[in-house]
Amino acid sequence: MVGDDQETLLVALQNSLARSNLIFIMGGLGPTDDDRTREALARVLGRPIVLDRRLLENIRAWFRRRKIRMSPANKRQAYLIDGAQSLDNKNGTAPGQWLETGSHRIVLLPGPPHELKPMFQESIQPRLERFRRSYLVRRVLKTTGLGESRLEDMIQDLYPKSRDLKVTLLASPGQVEIHIASASERSMSAADIKAERLEKKFLSRLGDRVFSISGEDLESVAGRLLRGEKKTLAIAESCTGGYLGHRLTNVPGSSDYFLGGILAYGNRAKIKLLGVPEAVIRKYGAVSPRTAAAMAEGVRMKMSSDIGLSITGIAGPSGGTPRKPVGLVYIALASDLGTDVSRNLFWGKREAIKFQSSQKALDMLRRYLLAEENSPSKKPAEKK
Amino acid sequence: MVGDDQETLLVALQNSLARSNLIFIMGGLGPTDDDRTREALARVLGRPIVLDRRLLENIRAWFRRRKIRMSPANKRQAYLIDGAQSLDNKNGTAPGQWLETGSHRIVLLPGPPHELKPMFQESIQPRLERFRRSYLVRRVLKTTGLGESRLEDMIQDLYPKSRDLKVTLLASPGQVEIHIASASERSMSAADIKAERLEKKFLSRLGDRVFSISGEDLESVAGRLLRGEKKTLAIAESCTGGYLGHRLTNVPGSSDYFLGGILAYGNRAKIKLLGVPEAVIRKYGAVSPRTAAAMAEGVRMKMSSDIGLSITGIAGPSGGTPRKPVGLVYIALASDLGTDVSRNLFWGKREAIKFQSSQKALDMLRRYLLAEENSPSKKPAEKK
Repeated sequence: MVGDDQETLLVALQNSLARSNLIFIMGGLGPTDDDRTREALARVLGRPIVLDRRLLENIRAWFRRRKIRMSPANKRQAYLIDGAQSLDNKNGTAPGQWLETGSHRIVLLPGPPHELKPMFQESIQPRLERFRRSYLVRRVLKTTGLGESRLEDMIQDLYPKSRDLKVTLLASPGQVEIHIASASERSMSAADIKAERLEKKFLSRLGDRVFSISGEDLESVAGRLLRGEKKTLAIAESCTGGYLGHRLTNVPGSSDYFLGGILAYGNRAKIKLLGVPEAVIRKYGAVSPRTAAAMAEGVRMKMSSDIGLSITGIAGPSGGTPRKPVGLVYIALASDLGTDVSRNLFWGKREAIKFQSSQKALDMLRRYLLAEENSPSKKPAEKK
Repeated sequence: MVGDDQETLLVALQNSLARSNLIFIMGGLGPTDDDRTREALARVLGRPIVLDRRLLENIRAWFRRRKIRMSPANKRQAYLIDGAQSLDNKNGTAPGQWLETGSHRIVLLPGPPHELKPMFQESIQPRLERFRRSYLVRRVLKTTGLGESRLEDMIQDLYPKSRDLKVTLLASPGQVEIHIASASERSMSAADIKAERLEKKFLSRLGDRVFSISGEDLESVAGRLLRGEKKTLAIAESCTGGYLGHRLTNVPGSSDYFLGGILAYGNRAKIKLLGVPEAVIRKYGAVSPRTAAAMAEGVRMKMSSDIGLSITGIAGPSGGTPRKPVGLVYIALASDLGTDVSRNLFWGKREAIKFQSSQKALDMLRRYLLAEENSPSKKPAEKK
């Protein structure tokens, strides 16, 4: 990481040129005064910067399309280092640059990830193929419901000893990912076969604790199952305050199965909007199995959904008591089969507790839908 | 960034020792097999690793308190490099280590930010004070409603020329931050005075476009104003699906003013739970000023709140039309003064549109509350 300071940039670029043949510079191509990587690189290479009229026209068009006034500063983005090829930016105004010198390949990329990533995939990756010396495949198994140490105890004896097949665990509260990296000098498929063989061993050991092998988030997995089972969902959130709904609706097309929900943050909302009996809250408290169940059943009825899912708990930092500490969260799932409630004791800060709560709710939903999918009543044809 | 590979780690550590006197190593102190920084550093320094019985007892106690079974792997975390001081970890099981050799100070820290940050503040920062050669102060002004280039056009003539007073803009869709960095070799207050003087110039130029100078998020600013004005809030979200509620409830104590809300993702929910007239949706569509207004008024009435805030729009990637493109979002605020609706055309991916929508809603709320705060009816005493 290099600051926006001309001197620091020059030193960093000189070091890189002395050390490496392939150099990526990300960020610093914006229109403002602190965007200086292009100028610094030109100076280190002793090349001028030249205005590219076609680029200038593209940038003008970008602003016209969006009906935004173009700032004079944006004109700076139409300048290329002499000899560089410009790389189209479909998601912003800063073009990338690809520069070949005698021994170096130097890439200037914009910093924002949503601009950088497509540019890398479309313009850089194809140019890099001819330098390839080995093939690397990565597979990711995502799990929830187990801590990092417990998970490793379960699978450690399967870890490969080979230098070109490696396993890494990536842990956060509520989710542990198993990353398999497999390398081959021969071909992509040779690397892939090794990775897949190991993945299968992990899967047969871990079973449905693995919720995704294709990079999918838990909200996408649950959404796919809802769509497959043609079930609709409504939610009632207390301590998560909308976070479960946010995750569910991050999935494009979620309006097909997600009807909506009620943020019953205060008790009045629980009683008035969800029909939780006031006596239940008075007797057992807002954070209790009874209230969680009544919330899930209430929202299911109000919204006429197949499934109602609710969360009520104490996200902290205050509000905890010895009997009901911060991190205590009840989650309920109501369906035509009845209502299940789970009791959880999560840990960490407020946002970590909100994440773990939403994660557990989505996992209950996933497991319910998996059971539906495998239920014998759905396969009458096979039974005959 | 160094991988979990012993050889790579050794080379990186040797390079660092040759180059620097103060070295931070973050991550790789966990209980699992790929956590190897401690062992690599011991090898480079030629020192043994020794079991610390007091540490082992601490780790055992940590698991006992949480009633979790301790994995044998966690015992590894009780080993220190010979001569190192252990640094308490209040938020996890991996202790940090502080090691002084002839010319080096080397710090081993755990990777998770919620463990690393408190450990740095409590154990490292005090130890580093004696090496201080200059004082650095940073101030951050957060703005919303202006793009990066437009903002820079407004303030660029105020930028200082001095080497020890610098301005950087940090932009994302919906928020641009102005970072002032001020350095002094004399004292903290000398650095602070320079920063404050520049901050005041920016503030008088930008006015209420700056929503925070103390690092506060927009949701915290809005929450503080709600509490100050003793107003309650209820929300109705369509395309943001709970994200606005999530942000509001990330603020500890938000239950004082946030009553809850309704996630009216589908039309049925808008009609049934919010009382939006079916005819309004049929005539103007779910994404229209009329529907936005009816949603804000509906949730305000249902939840008997002082303010109702609603969002309805098209987050994409699908669902857009030439007349109502992806990114079109209506936001309404209903109060006893009536209902305001704003029309917005946001850009970017689904999650960027959700963020910008919530940001604009919070900013409308902030501006409404600022106007309330300054309204003459609240200052009868001064008028006499």
